[in-house]
Amino acid sequence: MTNPISPDALDEKSLPQKIAEDIIALILEEHLQPGDKLPNESNLSNRLHAGRSSIREAMKLLASRNIVTIRQGSGTYVAASPGMVEDPLGFTFIGDKKKLVADLLDVRFLLEPSIAAMAAKWADENDIRKITALCSEVEDLLLQQKNHIQKDIEFHTAIAMSSKNLVVPRLIPVINSSIPLFVEITKSRLYTETIETHREITEAICAHDSVRAQDAMYLHLVYNRRLIQKMAET
Amino acid sequence: MTNPISPDALDEKSLPQKIAEDIIALILEEHLQPGDKLPNESNLSNRLHAGRSSIREAMKLLASRNIVTIRQGSGTYVAASPGMVEDPLGFTFIGDKKKLVADLLDVRFLLEPSIAAMAAKWADENDIRKITALCSEVEDLLLQQKNHIQKDIEFHTAIAMSSKNLVVPRLIPVINSSIPLFVEITKSRLYTETIETHREITEAICAHDSVRAQDAMYLHLVYNRRLIQKMAET
Repeated sequence: MTNPISPDALDEKSLPQKIAEDIIALILEEHLQPGDKLPNESNLSNRLHAGRSSIREAMKLLASRNIVTIRQGSGTYVAASPGMVEDPLGFTFIGDKKKLVADLLDVRFLLEPSIAAMAAKWADENDIRKITALCSEVEDLLLQQKNHIQKDIEFHTAIAMSSKNLVVPRLIPVINSSIPLFVEITKSRLYTETIETHREITEAICAHDSVRAQDAMYLHLVYNRRLIQKMAET
Repeated sequence: MTNPISPDALDEKSLPQKIAEDIIALILEEHLQPGDKLPNESNLSNRLHAGRSSIREAMKLLASRNIVTIRQGSGTYVAASPGMVEDPLGFTFIGDKKKLVADLLDVRFLLEPSIAAMAAKWADENDIRKITALCSEVEDLLLQQKNHIQKDIEFHTAIAMSSKNLVVPRLIPVINSSIPLFVEITKSRLYTETIETHREITEAICAHDSVRAQDAMYLHLVYNRRLIQKMAET
């Protein structure tokens, strides 16, 4: 997978980087799953024809990319969501946070209404139970004026999971990293609208009503955009 | 920026990880830009109250996340696209590549036609020159039956850049990592359609015609989806 705007990643590779790639190949070849234990250091050292200290360095690189988890005294395991790093698109390094929030919202407009429609079509009993529970949890936190950000992202991610598209659940948490920034900028002024639109999205998905789910998601995003625009004016 | 489906990233942090975060904070506070040199090891060691070997470990972690670039004998620099790693959404670890290609294409349908319309609206002289040049380069490579994948991704990324949305150019190369997989699966059978639709997208953006740019992009994606569906049947 090449990435044209990140030429640095393609620079000549160090020995630990090359070994890290060999370990990735081994995880894939042996179909190791999240939580599975990797072979130990001396085993890997033999199989990959590399010194143990290079193996250790390579494992640190893989841990920093969230591909493996190193448990002191226990061993090294395939990570829960291998390869999904925190802030994978580097939003931390975008200076203009106001524009970032507005632009993330524009991207959410392109993705989330259609995803809600897909979720209404494909959600199974398990998905519906999860979405309903998260909808209530966000509501409770909002009513108690407690921090709802984490649960809010989980709510939108559960909808994304229900779409049964493999890419969408990996994308939505990244795009929804706008939620903390957004709440910071708007100081959580939208809570009545959030409760109502979340509830309508949930009901529509439970009823497998794609059009209503899509419309409710548009409504949710429109309330968000209007508030952002109002804040920008003042 | 939290990421609910990646709890591993939130586990208790090692000393080099904590120092890595301090260095990120320093890059942001001092508004260091891509290509700027970071303070040297002993300077950082003093400022962050950390040993030089911990600083070195932290820099390796930052390099593996493509936040800095270490140039042997010269020093450490802010990376060209800080924080954008290769394969940031971990597609390498999705086993079912056929479904991945189809699902990536579904996401491209949601994003790229609107992005083409935004590009037609906002593209400046410089963008237009770049898109036109890349369109010709892809065309030449296709006619010579050479590998056009890298240039194809650059073409779609240049369109994304022209949208002037901060998020979209970071997203498109990731989504378009489907192009190599797709070409592999379809064995590049679409080249007449690719040449024609790429050219129409380019002309529409040059003419600042948003509707035509959007439609041409839909056409491009429809040809791709039909071929995938045909391949799946056989």
